[in-house]
Amino acid sequence: MAMRDLSGDATLLSLNTATLGPARSLRDAVEGCLRHGIGGISPWRDKIADAGLSQAERMIKRAGLTVTGVCRGGMFPAADAQGRAKALAENRRAVDEAAALGAECLVLVVGGLPPGSKDIGDARRQVADGLAITLDYARSVHVRLAIEPLHPMYAADRACINTLAQSLDLCEKLGAGIGVAVDIYHVWWDPDLHAQIARGGADGRLYAYHVCDWLVPTRDVLTDRGMMGDGVVDLKGIRRGMEQAGFNGLCEVEIFSAATWWPKPIDEILNTMVARGKTCV
Amino acid sequence: MAMRDLSGDATLLSLNTATLGPARSLRDAVEGCLRHGIGGISPWRDKIADAGLSQAERMIKRAGLTVTGVCRGGMFPAADAQGRAKALAENRRAVDEAAALGAECLVLVVGGLPPGSKDIGDARRQVADGLAITLDYARSVHVRLAIEPLHPMYAADRACINTLAQSLDLCEKLGAGIGVAVDIYHVWWDPDLHAQIARGGADGRLYAYHVCDWLVPTRDVLTDRGMMGDGVVDLKGIRRGMEQAGFNGLCEVEIFSAATWWPKPIDEILNTMVARGKTCV
Repeated sequence: MAMRDLSGDATLLSLNTATLGPARSLRDAVEGCLRHGIGGISPWRDKIADAGLSQAERMIKRAGLTVTGVCRGGMFPAADAQGRAKALAENRRAVDEAAALGAECLVLVVGGLPPGSKDIGDARRQVADGLAITLDYARSVHVRLAIEPLHPMYAADRACINTLAQSLDLCEKLGAGIGVAVDIYHVWWDPDLHAQIARGGADGRLYAYHVCDWLVPTRDVLTDRGMMGDGVVDLKGIRRGMEQAGFNGLCEVEIFSAATWWPKPIDEILNTMVARGKTCV
Repeated sequence: MAMRDLSGDATLLSLNTATLGPARSLRDAVEGCLRHGIGGISPWRDKIADAGLSQAERMIKRAGLTVTGVCRGGMFPAADAQGRAKALAENRRAVDEAAALGAECLVLVVGGLPPGSKDIGDARRQVADGLAITLDYARSVHVRLAIEPLHPMYAADRACINTLAQSLDLCEKLGAGIGVAVDIYHVWWDPDLHAQIARGGADGRLYAYHVCDWLVPTRDVLTDRGMMGDGVVDLKGIRRGMEQAGFNGLCEVEIFSAATWWPKPIDEILNTMVARGKTCV
């Protein structure tokens, strides 16, 4: 099967607001997408809050951008019942925001170990419970939930769901309305990657696709992701797998890069993102 | 099944020489084991080379230490045939050293992507080929090879074998004389961990067990491992799984800790290691 041709323009790219760094606003991101012909956007919730939800909705709609996701819900495990209830309430608000923006999914970073815990099995059970409750609500307002398996180096403090297989096992148990966000940064190393992408496609659960690159060396655990093409990931091979599995959504660019990209002018970041999108993704 | 009681002494602990940091010699490590009643040692090859192989052998034998492993062979993938041949020759030498020291296994860090490559599948095929050739030689001199699956954050530059399942699949293809080194730092996050430990035990392939801890936050990708008890890993739970699967070897302590432990005096490191071995492992 032929892959989609991304070489002509940036309409099949989506800008995750994290790519511009913490100092830029949602308006910066929306206007940047317009200037560079980028087809979609995926806003983080702090940027939505700064803009105001209604204003964010208006801005994005007027720009005609596809909302490939809202980042993020999740963070379910907590040390006590009060903490878990607080997390569930926060997830309802996140679902509401995804609904208001007409997002293709609410991306879930499920959370890691509660403070003091060494029981990752318990954290995983708490995640399953939190997902089930949040999914009930999300279904009622027609928002799809996308579990984002995070790289195992974040298992302790960010997400105890770390592979596509584990995510899809959970999805199967939970039923309709929940799928996965495949972020190459987190899953590129997985020997089971292509088999699980095929499985996710067969199950209709490939809700989002995030790209960046894995740098060698990686200087920081959190904020040293690479621009597409600057690292070692076989991006075209993975996109081919996604498309063969039926994914036809946008390729969302999410690059946490405190030292290299965030300090640059917005248009330099976006020029590079668009150029690499045409050649490397 | 009851677990072995480690609370009385340090005879079931082994000191990986990396725990003392790059500035200490094999003699430092051997004498430290003797002073602290530590039952085993696992030397890195640079420390063996510094001491001289015959002298290393004599020193360790006289101290009555079990050699739980030699670190390390591997690093098979290369950009060309010459590089691959060089790696194979180096692995023969590593096997010979493991044989000379009567080591329970030669630990293999299999290697990552050759420079310029984005093809992790190819790297994995090169690893399988290199393992097969090295295993032939290792069998001929009665040395067991232990694949150490490394944390996925090292997939690009250190080891493209990243889970126990992947390691045991390889072992099954390769046959007798090859097993795994289970290092909790690399595998603690794996949702399939306990199932794969059980499988490794059933297949008689649990050759080594390495402990340390996973710190939150982790400040450096390479050299910020924790002392047992200082992190989030369920060490007793994993050891229980290992012992239920039939592992009855020593618990090897391997802590890369440039900022916290390496700068400390040897006896402070070893006092702590022994105390934590009794209570946390």
